[in-house]
Amino acid sequence: MKVFAYGIREDEKPALKDWESQNPDVEVEYTDQLLTPETAKLAKGADSAVVYQQMDYTKETLEALAAAGVKNMSLRNVGTDNIDFDAAKALGFNISNVPVYSPNAIAEHSMIQLSRLLRRTKPMDAKVAKHDLRWAPTIGREMRMQTVGIIGTGHIGRVAINILKGFGAKVIAYDKFPNPELQKEGLYVDTLDELYAQADAISLYVPGVPENDHMINKDSIAKMKDGVVIVNVARGNLMDIDAVIDGLNSGKISDFAMDVYEKEVGLFNKDWSGKEFPDPKIADLIARENVLVTPHIAFYTTKAVSEMVHQSFDAAVSFAKGETPAIAVKY
Amino acid sequence: MKVFAYGIREDEKPALKDWESQNPDVEVEYTDQLLTPETAKLAKGADSAVVYQQMDYTKETLEALAAAGVKNMSLRNVGTDNIDFDAAKALGFNISNVPVYSPNAIAEHSMIQLSRLLRRTKPMDAKVAKHDLRWAPTIGREMRMQTVGIIGTGHIGRVAINILKGFGAKVIAYDKFPNPELQKEGLYVDTLDELYAQADAISLYVPGVPENDHMINKDSIAKMKDGVVIVNVARGNLMDIDAVIDGLNSGKISDFAMDVYEKEVGLFNKDWSGKEFPDPKIADLIARENVLVTPHIAFYTTKAVSEMVHQSFDAAVSFAKGETPAIAVKY
Repeated sequence: MKVFAYGIREDEKPALKDWESQNPDVEVEYTDQLLTPETAKLAKGADSAVVYQQMDYTKETLEALAAAGVKNMSLRNVGTDNIDFDAAKALGFNISNVPVYSPNAIAEHSMIQLSRLLRRTKPMDAKVAKHDLRWAPTIGREMRMQTVGIIGTGHIGRVAINILKGFGAKVIAYDKFPNPELQKEGLYVDTLDELYAQADAISLYVPGVPENDHMINKDSIAKMKDGVVIVNVARGNLMDIDAVIDGLNSGKISDFAMDVYEKEVGLFNKDWSGKEFPDPKIADLIARENVLVTPHIAFYTTKAVSEMVHQSFDAAVSFAKGETPAIAVKY
Repeated sequence: MKVFAYGIREDEKPALKDWESQNPDVEVEYTDQLLTPETAKLAKGADSAVVYQQMDYTKETLEALAAAGVKNMSLRNVGTDNIDFDAAKALGFNISNVPVYSPNAIAEHSMIQLSRLLRRTKPMDAKVAKHDLRWAPTIGREMRMQTVGIIGTGHIGRVAINILKGFGAKVIAYDKFPNPELQKEGLYVDTLDELYAQADAISLYVPGVPENDHMINKDSIAKMKDGVVIVNVARGNLMDIDAVIDGLNSGKISDFAMDVYEKEVGLFNKDWSGKEFPDPKIADLIARENVLVTPHIAFYTTKAVSEMVHQSFDAAVSFAKGETPAIAVKY
């Protein structure tokens, strides 16, 4: 059996090597090139292809892959909106993705960033970097002293809650669909307004569906405590970023961490050093000592990447054996 | 009743204001000056003095304070080694200190720094600061995937263990005097060698007593896993820093966070920007992307400072009433 993988990055190679050693009967070949109508022929002779790219899987691409004899395609990531499913159906493709790789990766990042904001590590690091070793006035706040509002208690929000409990923080939570376990613990407030009124810090774990669009806006910020700390590792469109910047300017929001940004496509995961950002707001946010910007890296851990590689290659083998893996995409 | 306080810093004023509002019957006066033979007279008319300084409380200073009619002295910090106790005894001084203010402040700092090292926030922050928004190759590791070795399971070490449990990390611990609760949980290994052999990351919470001097040295580092992460927020003399630097150079130690340094007196809490450090090693450590240096700030939180102010002022009132507060220094 043979699996051919496209777009393999350096950081995926340890996980790939690991998978290969656990699956000595499977021949693995790979390239750092992405899957295109031109590169599709590289997969010739393989039983399945493993892929990961933002670029579209067009009709032409899928036809070229089918022409190379490969009709099993396993994505190493979750998003499938760049696949021409009509073409895939007509060609008889089996497709899988990796819907859950590591909720901890994202939850940990959100709580590390929150703890850093409270502890003022950005200004303290800047002082140390220029050899100013005075501690005052860069005093920190403790996680355990905070009431933290968790919006969204799915997989990721629940991991964040466990981390907060470890720190000894007080947790309050809101979700349209409460989790029974957390309900027993009495963590839920009934409305977002209650959460806004009580929380010293707020962290978001809800999807970017239309009803959540700009849920953090001028009105909701006005309902929050003065000096609130906000963390968003979920989706950029949850926030009206202009309202957040106004809140930072007035001091209503004392600190802010963002790993996502409404206009992040074409902005994040690119090198802008020495160039001008397409959006001046991002430079302003990056420069503030009470703001931590990261370019959608919350998912980016060795464990998450390992899961993406292992699950996708396992699925590729499943398809090749004529089985249907649990993570097959139903379309 | 009147209390006079020396060396009050800006960051202490919110806590002081808070204490005053809770103690309306006590008259409080303060200065930002330290207690010296010259400033002692400022306390005239007070029942107790509240102090905090690295400078020595000499025979002359204590005599001057006694001459101003004040023989109750409450320290806002823990250290009493700068007091001339013979003189204090001869003059009949009552003295208190604040031995425990916030174990969480220190434990949180240690675990925040550990999580930051694992997540490689220093190189990622540096990339973002220069507008390079690419994530690869700055991949992080997850706290939950680590086996963390905790050396010393007193107040602070136990808080660190709770934080690690929240993250879902595996904890192993060593202490000469095991804590019965932790023993029941089966967290202890029998020897430091076992801890060194098993731990992906090691964090220290033991005192800087002579038997612990340079416990992290060439030999102990050799017993650790390749790529070990080390965090020291305890005492500088626990480490042979040259052995640690060798370990960083060889890659044996992948990451290191230090909040304490063997030669920190006269180095930390001073502004060296534009000047040369007395010790070239510190500049080398600060410049490394896999090292986080902080200048003994782990204790420095609003909660800890509030405890230092409240406990010392409470003790000052106790002394003034002829009582012996629980935190009176027995000498």
